[in-house]
Amino acid sequence: MAAALTARRRQPKTSQVTGAARKGVSILGSTGSIGTTTLALIERFPDRFRLVALAAGRRGDRLKDQVLRFRPDIISLADAHEAAQLAAALEAELGEDAPEVCHGGAGLARVACAPGTEILVSALVGAVGLAPTLAAIDAGIDIALANKEVMVVAGELVRKRAAASGSRLLPVDSEHNALFQALSGRDPAHIRKLVLTASGGPFRQHSAEQLARVTREEALRHPTWNMGDKITIDSASLMNKGLEVIEARWLFDVPPENIEVLVHPQSIVHALVRYRDESVIAVLALPDMTIPIAYALTHPDLLDLDYLPRLDLASVGSLTFTAPDFERFPCLGLAYRALAAGGTMPAVANAANEVAVARFLAGEIGFLDIAATVAACMDAHRTQSCDNLDLLLEADGWARSAAADRPAA
Amino acid sequence: MAAALTARRRQPKTSQVTGAARKGVSILGSTGSIGTTTLALIERFPDRFRLVALAAGRRGDRLKDQVLRFRPDIISLADAHEAAQLAAALEAELGEDAPEVCHGGAGLARVACAPGTEILVSALVGAVGLAPTLAAIDAGIDIALANKEVMVVAGELVRKRAAASGSRLLPVDSEHNALFQALSGRDPAHIRKLVLTASGGPFRQHSAEQLARVTREEALRHPTWNMGDKITIDSASLMNKGLEVIEARWLFDVPPENIEVLVHPQSIVHALVRYRDESVIAVLALPDMTIPIAYALTHPDLLDLDYLPRLDLASVGSLTFTAPDFERFPCLGLAYRALAAGGTMPAVANAANEVAVARFLAGEIGFLDIAATVAACMDAHRTQSCDNLDLLLEADGWARSAAADRPAA
Repeated sequence: MAAALTARRRQPKTSQVTGAARKGVSILGSTGSIGTTTLALIERFPDRFRLVALAAGRRGDRLKDQVLRFRPDIISLADAHEAAQLAAALEAELGEDAPEVCHGGAGLARVACAPGTEILVSALVGAVGLAPTLAAIDAGIDIALANKEVMVVAGELVRKRAAASGSRLLPVDSEHNALFQALSGRDPAHIRKLVLTASGGPFRQHSAEQLARVTREEALRHPTWNMGDKITIDSASLMNKGLEVIEARWLFDVPPENIEVLVHPQSIVHALVRYRDESVIAVLALPDMTIPIAYALTHPDLLDLDYLPRLDLASVGSLTFTAPDFERFPCLGLAYRALAAGGTMPAVANAANEVAVARFLAGEIGFLDIAATVAACMDAHRTQSCDNLDLLLEADGWARSAAADRPAA
Repeated sequence: MAAALTARRRQPKTSQVTGAARKGVSILGSTGSIGTTTLALIERFPDRFRLVALAAGRRGDRLKDQVLRFRPDIISLADAHEAAQLAAALEAELGEDAPEVCHGGAGLARVACAPGTEILVSALVGAVGLAPTLAAIDAGIDIALANKEVMVVAGELVRKRAAASGSRLLPVDSEHNALFQALSGRDPAHIRKLVLTASGGPFRQHSAEQLARVTREEALRHPTWNMGDKITIDSASLMNKGLEVIEARWLFDVPPENIEVLVHPQSIVHALVRYRDESVIAVLALPDMTIPIAYALTHPDLLDLDYLPRLDLASVGSLTFTAPDFERFPCLGLAYRALAAGGTMPAVANAANEVAVARFLAGEIGFLDIAATVAACMDAHRTQSCDNLDLLLEADGWARSAAADRPAA
C-alpha cells in the first residue's frame, strides 16, 4: 500500500527519546497554515509531542526544511517525480537518517497511518484528505480535524466509522473547537441549540445590487482572519458558515434545525451553546489557530500557552451580534438545504461551490453566480444515500463538471 | 434544639408521594426574592421536588400563604410571639395537617436540617443565615447558596466543613453560578483567571465629585436587576462585586490574585473563566434568578425551562466591557484588601459596609462615606485567624458598633 521510495526502514523514534508520554503526531498538509502552526507548537513543547510523519502537496522545498528541522520517520509529496527528487536530496544530506519518502494517495495513507501515530492532524484542503483520514480513523487513530471536506462530504460515514474504531474526532476549526469546549462535561440531551458565529465577511452590509458588482479584490479583503483565497470568498458568501453547519451536524450529532448561525464581526466569540435551561455557554478567544490546535492535540489536558496575546475584553470594548441574512447570502440556506436532503447532496453543494469560487476568482463569473451555480447543481442532482466513499466521490466529481460547464450569467 | 411549638409530628411526606426521585428541598428565607422564585420552580416541577421546610423572618402572612399552598412539614419565623400566632391560625385551618412551627435561631436550624431535606436553599440576608447553613453543611445536606454572608464572613470555615461532611456548595448568585458552570468538567489546575462581571451600577460614569453628591434615590435606580435596597447600593458602590470576589475565592478555592472584575452594563455575561491556553469560557443568560436556582437544585441534571424568555444576542445587539475603576469605587479595592488580610477581616468589611449602607439609606452619611467607613473600621481592626464561628461573629459585632459610632463626615 505504501509508495515507499526509500527501502531502508529506520528504528522508530520512540525508542530514542525519554518520556513515553510524548504523543506521536502525524500531519496531512504540513506546509499549509494549520500544518506550520502545528509544527511550531510541537517545536515549543518538545516534551509533549513527537513528530512521526508529514505529508505536503507540491511544496517540496518547504517539506525538506521541515524534515531537516523535525526529522520525521515518513514523508509524502503529491507527485512521484518530485518525491523522488526530494528523496535523493534528503539521502544526500542525511544518509541513513533520511526518512521514508512516499507519494500520491498511497503516500497520504502511509503518513496518516504511520506507525507510532497517536493523533493525525488532518489539514489537507479538499476531498483529497478524505481517504487517508478515513484510513487513520479505521486504524483507531485520533483525528485533529481541520479538513472541512472530510465532514462536509462524508460526515455521516466518518462519524459511523469513528464510532466503530474508537477514533476520537477533535475539531481544529475554531468554531467547532469552541462548540466542543462548550459541550464538554455536558449531557447532549440538555442541548437546545448550537450557535456558530460568522464574521459576516466584508459584504455583510452590502445590498443585493452591490453584491452583484463585487470584485475579486474586494472579496479577498477579509476583516479579521488571514486565510487562503478560497475560504476568504466562502466567508464573504457565508458558504463557509454553511459548510460549518454541515460539519457541526455530524461532529456533534445534532439535527440541523438545532444549529444556528449568528453574525459577529469581531470574531472573538467563536461559538455558543444554548442549553435547555436558557443559559448559554460561549467560547471566546483571540483569532489564533494555535489555541484550537493545542486543544485538539492534548485534550483533555490543556497546554499553558502563556506566550500568546491575551484576550482583554475591556480593550475589545464591544462585541456585536446580528442575525444572518438568508436573502442576501443564499449560500447559507443552500447548505441547510443540502443537509436536509442528506446523502450525496452536501458533497454536491461543496464541490459545486469549490468550482464556482475558482471561476469567480478567475473572473469568469460574478459573486452572486457562486450561489446560483451551487443551486443549479443541487437542482440537477438526485440525492443518493451515502454508505460508501466511492459514491460520494462520484457525486463530487459530477458536481465539479456540472459547475464548470455552467455558462457564465 | 428545635423550638417546636406544635408537639404533634406528621408522617414525612415522602411516603405519600409517587416518584422517589423527588428531591427534598427546604428554604431559609422563603418569603424573599430567591425564596419565592424557588417556590415557583417547585410548583412548576412537582415531579422533581418535594418541599420539606420553610423559614421566613417577619412576614408571617406570606409564610402562612406558602404553607397553605405547599404544605411543608416544618416552618419557622423569627419572633416567638408571631410564630405562636401563626401556629394557632394554621392549627385552626389545617388541624392535624398543620406543620410544626418553630422560631428564632433554633427554628432556623430546625428548618435547615429538617428530616428529608436533601438540599437547603440558603437565602436569608445577613449573618443570621450562617449558623443554620453551617448546621445543614455539617449534616451533609447540599446547599443552594444565595446568602452572600455565609461565604463572605466564614468562607474558609464553610469550605472546610463542607469538605469534611461531603455537603456540596452550589452557588445561586448568578455570577458564581456562572463560574460554577464555566468550571464544570474542567481541571482546576488549568484555570488562569476567574472573571466576575459587574453592571457597574448607575454611577459608573460619574466623576468623584458627582459621586460625593449622589442621593439615596439616585442610588436606588439600578439599571438592570430589580433587587433589594441594600444590594442595589452595594451594586452602585461596587462593594457587591467586592463581596462576590471574596465568595468566589472560597467557593472555588482560587487565590485572590486570580479573580478579576469586568464592568459589563448589560448584565448578560455573568462570569468568564480564562484558561491557561488563553481561551475563555463565558456564561450568558437573561437576568432571571430562576436559571441559577434551577441549576443549583438539579445539578448535574438540567431542567427544561422553555417557558422563560430566550436570550437572543441579535436582539441584544451589543455587549460592552470596561475595566473597573478602583479609584472612584474604593469599595472594590477594600474587598481585595480584606481578602488579603484574611481571617476576621472580610467579616469586618462586610459588617461595616452593611451599617454604612443603612446609614446612607437613612440620609445620615454621603455615598463616598460608605467606603470611608469600611476603610476606617478595617484600619482599626486587628485581624485574627478564623477557626470558629464565634470569633467571626464577634468581629462582625465589633465592626457594626464601630461603623454605627463613626461620626458623619
